Amino acid sequence: MFANLEHLGLAVHDLEAATALYTTLLGQPPYKQEHVASEGVDTVFFRVGGSKIELLAGTTPDSAITKYLSKKPEGIHHVAFAVADIRAEMARLRAAGFVLLSEEPKPGADNKLVCFVHPKSAAGVLVELCQDMGA
Amino acid sequence: MFANLEHLGLAVHDLEAATALYTTLLGQPPYKQEHVASEGVDTVFFRVGGSKIELLAGTTPDSAITKYLSKKPEGIHHVAFAVADIRAEMARLRAAGFVLLSEEPKPGADNKLVCFVHPKSAAGVLVELCQDMGA
Repeated sequence: MFANLEHLGLAVHDLEAATALYTTLLGQPPYKQEHVASEGVDTVFFRVGGSKIELLAGTTPDSAITKYLSKKPEGIHHVAFAVADIRAEMARLRAAGFVLLSEEPKPGADNKLVCFVHPKSAAGVLVELCQDMGA
Repeated sequence: MFANLEHLGLAVHDLEAATALYTTLLGQPPYKQEHVASEGVDTVFFRVGGSKIELLAGTTPDSAITKYLSKKPEGIHHVAFAVADIRAEMARLRAAGFVLLSEEPKPGADNKLVCFVHPKSAAGVLVELCQDMGA
């Protein structure tokens, strides 16, 4: 079971412009920026209640965000749900026929272990499961 | 300022199939269904922590969801943020240059007053503001 809508990931071309836009829209500045070298992305995080908005810009041609924005317009890229035990959730979903994008969870932004569910398995939505790795 | 990521709205072709899929994915059944005649949509709501997932299927040719799915694949249609005073937030955003899709808030699903921000104003995201109308 999913505990919380942890964050919504938005793919953007211009991280600085999108950060200024979302600072005004949400009525508050971001609380952190993070470069995730393994994924080739720069990220900016805003808090909204118990959830977060993550702006993502690709920093390499191979980045999933760069590839996504070469085919699609800016917008919502993925939705992430917090889970207490990511391996247990992955096993549960795999057994139910969902297609996962990795065999094992991987380190992601924001000190998380993450795994993605293929959008074809979830009515067109790229779903991320994420488990906090703790301090 | 936005208080909470209130819900994520997903546009789907087959509400029954998507309801079964998301019941399995989220690990729990929906807590309500609602027909919104004014918008030409059938909706199904799931709770995930302090947020909700709303599945939306069009019931008329003029429905925004029917039109959306005639041009785009199934997936995330909008993201809704809870606000305490929707008219104050609308005035704040209008003054900051955001384009709103209505002059006044309108009654929406789930006993809410709602207003949408044009996706062109929000990096490709259809943003909904919603204020609970109370009991």
